[in-house]
Amino acid sequence: MVEQGFDAERVKSSESLFSIGNGAMGQRANFEEDYSGPTFQGSYIAGVYYPDKTRVGWWKNGYPEYFAKVLNAPNWIGIHVYIDSVALDLNTCKVVVDFKRELNMKEGWYTRSFRATTSNDIQIAVHVTRFLSLDLDELGAIKYELQLLSGEATVKMVPYLDAGITNEDSNWDDKFWNITNISQQGNRGFIEAHTMKTHFATCTFMHAEAEFDGKKVDGKPSEKKETKIGLSFEATLERGQTATLTKFGGYTVSTNHKKEALVHAANTVLDTATAIGFDQLLEKQASAWQAIWEMSDITIAGDVKAQQGIRFNIFQLNQTYLGKDSRLNIGPKGFTGEKYGGSTYWDTEAYCLPFYMATKDQTVARSLLEYRYNHLEKAIENAQKLGFTNGAALYPMVTMNGEECHNEWEITFEEIHRNGAIAFAIYNYYRFTGDYSYIPEMGLEVLIGIARFWSQRVNFSNKKKKYVMLGVTGPNEYENNVNNNWYTNYLAKWCMTYALEQLQKVKDGYPSDYDRIVAHTKLTETETDLWKEISGNMYFPRSKKHAIYLQQDGFLDKEMIEVKDLDKSERPINQKWSWDRILRSPYIKQADVLQGFYLFEDQFTQEELEKHFDFYEPFTVHESSLSPCVHSIQAAKLGRMEQAYTFYLRTSRLDLDDYNKEVEEGLHITSMAGTWMSIVEGFGGMRVLDDKLSFSPQIPSQWDSYSFKVNFRNRIIKVTVDAQKTSFELSGHEEMSIRVDGRRVVLQPDAKTVV
Amino acid sequence: MVEQGFDAERVKSSESLFSIGNGAMGQRANFEEDYSGPTFQGSYIAGVYYPDKTRVGWWKNGYPEYFAKVLNAPNWIGIHVYIDSVALDLNTCKVVVDFKRELNMKEGWYTRSFRATTSNDIQIAVHVTRFLSLDLDELGAIKYELQLLSGEATVKMVPYLDAGITNEDSNWDDKFWNITNISQQGNRGFIEAHTMKTHFATCTFMHAEAEFDGKKVDGKPSEKKETKIGLSFEATLERGQTATLTKFGGYTVSTNHKKEALVHAANTVLDTATAIGFDQLLEKQASAWQAIWEMSDITIAGDVKAQQGIRFNIFQLNQTYLGKDSRLNIGPKGFTGEKYGGSTYWDTEAYCLPFYMATKDQTVARSLLEYRYNHLEKAIENAQKLGFTNGAALYPMVTMNGEECHNEWEITFEEIHRNGAIAFAIYNYYRFTGDYSYIPEMGLEVLIGIARFWSQRVNFSNKKKKYVMLGVTGPNEYENNVNNNWYTNYLAKWCMTYALEQLQKVKDGYPSDYDRIVAHTKLTETETDLWKEISGNMYFPRSKKHAIYLQQDGFLDKEMIEVKDLDKSERPINQKWSWDRILRSPYIKQADVLQGFYLFEDQFTQEELEKHFDFYEPFTVHESSLSPCVHSIQAAKLGRMEQAYTFYLRTSRLDLDDYNKEVEEGLHITSMAGTWMSIVEGFGGMRVLDDKLSFSPQIPSQWDSYSFKVNFRNRIIKVTVDAQKTSFELSGHEEMSIRVDGRRVVLQPDAKTVV
Repeated sequence: MVEQGFDAERVKSSESLFSIGNGAMGQRANFEEDYSGPTFQGSYIAGVYYPDKTRVGWWKNGYPEYFAKVLNAPNWIGIHVYIDSVALDLNTCKVVVDFKRELNMKEGWYTRSFRATTSNDIQIAVHVTRFLSLDLDELGAIKYELQLLSGEATVKMVPYLDAGITNEDSNWDDKFWNITNISQQGNRGFIEAHTMKTHFATCTFMHAEAEFDGKKVDGKPSEKKETKIGLSFEATLERGQTATLTKFGGYTVSTNHKKEALVHAANTVLDTATAIGFDQLLEKQASAWQAIWEMSDITIAGDVKAQQGIRFNIFQLNQTYLGKDSRLNIGPKGFTGEKYGGSTYWDTEAYCLPFYMATKDQTVARSLLEYRYNHLEKAIENAQKLGFTNGAALYPMVTMNGEECHNEWEITFEEIHRNGAIAFAIYNYYRFTGDYSYIPEMGLEVLIGIARFWSQRVNFSNKKKKYVMLGVTGPNEYENNVNNNWYTNYLAKWCMTYALEQLQKVKDGYPSDYDRIVAHTKLTETETDLWKEISGNMYFPRSKKHAIYLQQDGFLDKEMIEVKDLDKSERPINQKWSWDRILRSPYIKQADVLQGFYLFEDQFTQEELEKHFDFYEPFTVHESSLSPCVHSIQAAKLGRMEQAYTFYLRTSRLDLDDYNKEVEEGLHITSMAGTWMSIVEGFGGMRVLDDKLSFSPQIPSQWDSYSFKVNFRNRIIKVTVDAQKTSFELSGHEEMSIRVDGRRVVLQPDAKTVV
Repeated sequence: MVEQGFDAERVKSSESLFSIGNGAMGQRANFEEDYSGPTFQGSYIAGVYYPDKTRVGWWKNGYPEYFAKVLNAPNWIGIHVYIDSVALDLNTCKVVVDFKRELNMKEGWYTRSFRATTSNDIQIAVHVTRFLSLDLDELGAIKYELQLLSGEATVKMVPYLDAGITNEDSNWDDKFWNITNISQQGNRGFIEAHTMKTHFATCTFMHAEAEFDGKKVDGKPSEKKETKIGLSFEATLERGQTATLTKFGGYTVSTNHKKEALVHAANTVLDTATAIGFDQLLEKQASAWQAIWEMSDITIAGDVKAQQGIRFNIFQLNQTYLGKDSRLNIGPKGFTGEKYGGSTYWDTEAYCLPFYMATKDQTVARSLLEYRYNHLEKAIENAQKLGFTNGAALYPMVTMNGEECHNEWEITFEEIHRNGAIAFAIYNYYRFTGDYSYIPEMGLEVLIGIARFWSQRVNFSNKKKKYVMLGVTGPNEYENNVNNNWYTNYLAKWCMTYALEQLQKVKDGYPSDYDRIVAHTKLTETETDLWKEISGNMYFPRSKKHAIYLQQDGFLDKEMIEVKDLDKSERPINQKWSWDRILRSPYIKQADVLQGFYLFEDQFTQEELEKHFDFYEPFTVHESSLSPCVHSIQAAKLGRMEQAYTFYLRTSRLDLDDYNKEVEEGLHITSMAGTWMSIVEGFGGMRVLDDKLSFSPQIPSQWDSYSFKVNFRNRIIKVTVDAQKTSFELSGHEEMSIRVDGRRVVLQPDAKTVV
């Protein structure tokens, strides 16, 4: 990805788009040297957060006391550059030409170069390369090259660490970091600091070396302040000569090291880095990314925009989460901004899991599941705060450590379908990976907690003679506090049924696990009888006239004007309309009933899907980044490839084309997994049916061909689709039977099968 | 009302309960001298507010930019008292005995007395009298008497003004006041200050004089600081001698005077006050209150608690609002605290208006109506912000100057029934006073704006083939965003019908007003046809089985457990339950369907009332101060006097007995009018039927008798009820026909009629 030309207006957006990350840390594409124009500074460490005290207008019982926020971490990338004592600052340069950013997604590095005439009339050329190492995930590296194009000048470079940083998003302007020690050892610097309240201890570190015109220059202490430490490298250059500064930096954190050993650990990382050297580290970076791309790349021939879109999405997902640490998860903005607090949402289970299951070793997906198992006790506490009893578990809407962080009653207390997504992920994981062991070991307890929650959340309506669920918010957040959201009711019924099935299966197949779990959860037959009773008598709102399930009770009382008949000036409605108007409108923010048809498609006929799609699509405004991918998949399933393609483009280029004019706040990471689903599940029609991988490949008319790989139960299959045929290449040593358009096809190892 | 004994724990509650006010200003019963214990300082000037920038967790389109808050105003009551140079402070005194507060509600003054041994072991007795003048409503007066009970000591009294005050309730810790000048003229002091943003200019003033052992002492300048000015009076007293300080103080405000003339106006007030003198001012105060009590007193024989309750309520209502200024209104906490911002709610129209109509000259009620007429343009703007057009008016939930201040979407955007209460008040005013002139002059335009709002807020349901109203919050705020709240739908239909009737009536009787209004509002026949169409086809949720109107769609899907079957530990549910649990429960915070039966009782039979009361009362938790009065009136109407009495006591002694453990924040002023209604409309059964006053008197078994007066169309009738009979005394010169228990009774002037 390349940006050409300098535009101060675009700096913040580009800082988002050119962000880099390695799963353990990440940062926006802020400049190394000073910049006095508008910028949004951000460096983030995975799992390091601050519990910012909740600030609401009107407190409601049950609100969490704080919102766990991802923290802007101490800056290790900074390099002050002085030319004849004047600081280099693109905002004050007289001329900036040939400005170029490049994000090399193939090899995982970022460069920036420009030529400039400084405010003191000196001409220079700068080229910076930066990356965050995949192999050494506490390490980042920068090579900053400055060539003098005019006269003679003294160039001083001051690489520094700065812990005097703040969050833009802060409720009470609290101080988030407490600096405990700043030290220097030769050409290395260290700032030890811990977060307030959560006491995550960190050491931000750097090592710098410089050559001026090929000659090594020693650094001198400089810039040591209360929050900052720097090293100064200075020499006089003549026209054409170059100063090159290599800076290694990063963080060691108390989640991975003893608090006392953070500086030592930093030194160890730096010793390794300096021994290997910048150039070889960069080569290793390219190989590490090659391995990722080898498995996860999707190629699209004949449509550059579509190709760039999917690669950008896959790249960002891999920058955000690599599944090495089950304490981590996938924040909606990854390491690219502060919004949504870097926390975990149901996006992980509903959108991201399929991507990670199919493109990584299954341990990665299992890590994501274990994350929720580890939070089960907190989910039970969370349910207790809302009045539920007896081990009922409600997973939080937003979380960092398992505790709820969100504080809008209609979301926090009512958007409870998230609980179902977590159960569904367990089912989905087993369906795809075939790894049943997770269920007796961990998953069943989660399923029991969730089933208990639903059984307490419904009530029997004497009027309807069915179990109803009152006061919920479905996936479509443009409806709040509705009764009998079909999706939520369906999910609740499914959760209880699935929990019952798995109980039986574990009882039969893993009796000692079963005994342990029953003893631990104190599960009784009265409870499971109740689950049976409820799941057999759940109420589902339905319209006879339209032969569809209704999104909720009373949906047809609305004024049913289709989106296409809305004046353009009214869109997006979330910016143009007051909340009550949105709520009483029929407009759907993101797939809701259709989300249910997506998750449970095997339980509905194609005709039913068509009826529901035809009914709901015209009212869907897709004002959530999570919406178009589901509609794309369903449009593809209905053979409506033009529509499917339109939705695909919208989802894949959301950030690149900045549809919502907000990319400067950061990228929409979790919805990027939906882009992958649009191709693999939508166009490729990939499913797991009867324990077998199945495809129904189609191709948008705009494309010549496309290909993707999936890892299905440790078998790697490459699928290539063009207008005439689909070819399958299976690696490994055994044959494998799949289904293509409903027919059985046997793939031979290391051979291409064309259908 | 008397408090005996000093208890630091009770100081804040007593500060609320002993508050004084005169309609133009008011203050909590803070001590004059220093107090270092917990206290909630509050002095308030009617109509002086600050637009505090809105602070919410999650912004929604349409939220107002600020919340107009009543401001804690500069303190004019303060008097530092030093005895041998040590400040008198009840919190540090070694002994405090005979502490007594008395609020003389009959004469409108407040005293406090105590004997104390100070921290430097000097014994003193203090007696303070304070009042806010009804006649000179910019003036307050204090007489502070201190007697030395031990040895000899130097006593210094420093009356001061202090503008260095803050609000406890502040969103951003803004500075609210800007001091422009502090000056002294002899024994007078002045602080000129204006509010930030709103620029209300005020002069806080004082005049002080002192006698030590009967000898006048001159004051010396003292305490002049950036925010403060004081005068020092000092002399040595011997045992048994007394120092007496008389302090006049108060505010002149730019709403009533030219900004430049505030000090001059203050001097004029002080000249008048000093010419009259403290003692005679106090006599005038007693006469002024006597005139108020003469008309508004209710006597109850045989039940001291009930008697105290109603008198306290009537006293507070008169302290808060006297109807002299149509820019003012009745804040839910009056001048007794900051909460609810001193702003106007629908409480005024729904609860307070009947009290003021019946106990004051009709100009007072008309002032309340004019207040809303003056805000009509703002109400139209408010509706525009929410997407309504063409002159539709939505009156704010909370306001100071006509603009909306509230910021919870489920209230601000959805609790729209408030609009109906404003139309109903117009009807109620005419029904009671017979003054039709308000409607052609002002009211009709308000009615048109409101009818327009409802006609746009409903939509036609193709499913129900009726007009529905989606996404509202009724008076019962324990339901949010419901569909077809019966009360709101009924009110909307009534508003449209009533607007149509009044249009016709004005057209027939006041053609030039009609022409003016139609021209100004651009009202068309298409619109009025639509109102007809809607009001004739409005949907009302109903249960055939129970033969009742349902509070809203789906109400019977709830788990219908009556309040009496709830465990006590679950109450009050608004403190014990999370919001979602409250919402899906059947519990009713305050009369909702029954509020409709109260307003429109002539449109339902007694049998219907009974059915609805029997259905809804068991689910009503009365966790709003506005609830028990309506149920009391209806229980009385149903002849259930024990229940009516219980509700009466609860409503009348809410603050005195601090049912909700929150009296320290201030008093519940607006619900106090409900107490009056409980007696006059409930027990007395007063109504206006066919243009005639009507009574159906009953009496609780706990009472020997009770009496009240009403001013009906400038005729004063005193009604006295005991167990055997009701007597009516009519003042004036003409006979008057009323109805008692449905029979016509003719009252003779200046005679007693016994029924």
